[in-house]
Amino acid sequence: MTPSVKTLSVLGATGSIGRNTLDIVDHHRDAFEIVALTAQSNVAELARQALKYRARMAVIGDEALYSELKSLLSGTNTVVAAGEDALVAAASETVDCVMAAIVGSAGLKPTFAAAKHAKRVALANKECLVCAGEAFMTLIASGTCELLPVDSEHSGVFQTIAAADESSIEQITLTASGGPFRSWSNEQMAAATVDQALNHPNWSMGAKVTIDSATMMNKGLELIEAFHLFPVRHEQLSCVVHPQSIVHCLVSFTDGTTLAQMACPDMRTPIAYALGWPNRLKAPTKRLDLTDLSGLTFELADENRFPALAVARAALEKGGAAPCILNAANEVAVAAFLDRKIGFTDIADLVGWTLDRCEALGLTGRVCSLKDVLDVDREARMLSGSRLDGGP
Amino acid sequence: MTPSVKTLSVLGATGSIGRNTLDIVDHHRDAFEIVALTAQSNVAELARQALKYRARMAVIGDEALYSELKSLLSGTNTVVAAGEDALVAAASETVDCVMAAIVGSAGLKPTFAAAKHAKRVALANKECLVCAGEAFMTLIASGTCELLPVDSEHSGVFQTIAAADESSIEQITLTASGGPFRSWSNEQMAAATVDQALNHPNWSMGAKVTIDSATMMNKGLELIEAFHLFPVRHEQLSCVVHPQSIVHCLVSFTDGTTLAQMACPDMRTPIAYALGWPNRLKAPTKRLDLTDLSGLTFELADENRFPALAVARAALEKGGAAPCILNAANEVAVAAFLDRKIGFTDIADLVGWTLDRCEALGLTGRVCSLKDVLDVDREARMLSGSRLDGGP
Repeated sequence: MTPSVKTLSVLGATGSIGRNTLDIVDHHRDAFEIVALTAQSNVAELARQALKYRARMAVIGDEALYSELKSLLSGTNTVVAAGEDALVAAASETVDCVMAAIVGSAGLKPTFAAAKHAKRVALANKECLVCAGEAFMTLIASGTCELLPVDSEHSGVFQTIAAADESSIEQITLTASGGPFRSWSNEQMAAATVDQALNHPNWSMGAKVTIDSATMMNKGLELIEAFHLFPVRHEQLSCVVHPQSIVHCLVSFTDGTTLAQMACPDMRTPIAYALGWPNRLKAPTKRLDLTDLSGLTFELADENRFPALAVARAALEKGGAAPCILNAANEVAVAAFLDRKIGFTDIADLVGWTLDRCEALGLTGRVCSLKDVLDVDREARMLSGSRLDGGP
Repeated sequence: MTPSVKTLSVLGATGSIGRNTLDIVDHHRDAFEIVALTAQSNVAELARQALKYRARMAVIGDEALYSELKSLLSGTNTVVAAGEDALVAAASETVDCVMAAIVGSAGLKPTFAAAKHAKRVALANKECLVCAGEAFMTLIASGTCELLPVDSEHSGVFQTIAAADESSIEQITLTASGGPFRSWSNEQMAAATVDQALNHPNWSMGAKVTIDSATMMNKGLELIEAFHLFPVRHEQLSCVVHPQSIVHCLVSFTDGTTLAQMACPDMRTPIAYALGWPNRLKAPTKRLDLTDLSGLTFELADENRFPALAVARAALEKGGAAPCILNAANEVAVAAFLDRKIGFTDIADLVGWTLDRCEALGLTGRVCSLKDVLDVDREARMLSGSRLDGGP
């Protein structure tokens, strides 16, 4: 099943996806050799991982933590580095697989670097597709790097359309749990606290994606990802609310068939798939039973209560720089919400405002390169930030 | 989508699968050229079809109907024939695809002939796998004929394991509607009438398979089919009762994934798949909507109320001639029930009795060839028949 040892780097090793990736490695210790591990600031966990997996390289994003990491790994053979350029250098190591699990647009440069040098990128960093989808997919198409999605929904779609000819796909539907506020009114959500928003009913994830799940912006971002990953028009993409998070996607075909990918909500399943494809690794997850399967429900998403979905869909339809602006404004807004600077419903408002403002300023045109993307990303962050600070 | 015209023969053209096959052809008239059409006794419908599709050949199984068919098709270019040998000759025509849809063990010889000469057999005749699984799969493995299953459950499994390596499959679960007597007690079933048993809640099928669905023998036969079609041990095969008949199979893998194939209960979906593979033809079936998907239920099959399931599973585990005996006795029993000669619960009893009797007579050994199978089939029918006639 795992015929030879794969060299593996994990970008964002101390986050939720990174830790789950290393858990899968724990169950297949003979199958993987860890090359580079990176983290932004969790230096203690990064050092612990580097020791355990005898990583060839450990890189911390925050340069101020370099000496701490160096001292924690003294006496080992692990090469230690810090800073943004070092992250990119670590991502550029030639390996069989890079797990690209840095959260946010901070992951753009390292993930692009990985796509240039690795045999496979297991993509958990949404922003490569949301902000820079055209540039990233052009890079993939022009090279030899395999791209395997790690989001559970996209992993599911990848599995179900494996052998399909494009013209046979009628519809791709991503499911959404609906998050903690699925049945809340607009008034209740306006008063929602950070703790309430972080209390996801099904998934254990990082803070950013958990808030995105509560606003349903996460599903909007995933529709944009799906648009770049799969051979469909945006009208063929939809989402439905499925509170049990058992079915991750539904793909319907011209012969009347719908294929569904299901699994208990545990990221180790799509991670194992991305690491092992075309084989499947064993993952120590709970298996579905008849109780899990019975009484699954599906309902339309309510864009009135979850305006982030409508904003994201508009950005998808507009294309160009709009998805990048959407993402940047959303990162600023979520950070402000987590810092208790704005309310929950202000998140979608700020994103919508930023998109409108950028359009008025002529910033929503085509973005061709990673540099274009980073420029737009910066500009959109500045606009959102100035709005938060009481600007125009 | 359909790059070139496929030559197609339909064995059992006037039955439910045959008519649905021709309905798919109606929607892709430029894609198919009909070579041979066969039927057992429905001479009027066969003649109508032969005229409509300008079949090169029309064969009626019942020799007494030869002159009627000949006269109905006089003045056409269609070659007319009758009798068992003529069915085999029609099945032996070299074509791109044979739809093997003869019901019962009468389909064995023609389907074997098709597997020797056609580029593809779309297999709706269960008996090739149930009675002669080893011989049939050996024939397929040694030749160049593609085998595409047409049962909705097996079509679903075929679709979901398309790219899977064998060791990654943990479990294959076929769903069963539970039939019209899903919630009936043993006492109620003992008094069930033919009309009640023929009143299937979801599927419109021929009489034999509808009764098999009511006893759940159908699911037992399908487990045996699946055993031959897919690279699993019998312990990896199971069935669950799913009254809505939307999910046709569930295949679970070592990484925790379960893939489900779903469609509204309409045989045109698996037929279109078998005709079009690896592409998917458009089929004019109702598409699933959110209402179809919500509230699906799954429950364990009750082998106490549906003993046919346990009898079939025992035959699967025993192997050798046991599945062939199971099938023969079941055909005799279902015919007797449809003729109002025995009660509904007598069906499974007669099958169980025949299996026990054959074992006592040393008839359950290995069957290597089609001839062995036909011998055992005949012997088992005689035993079942003599039991019905009050024999020992």
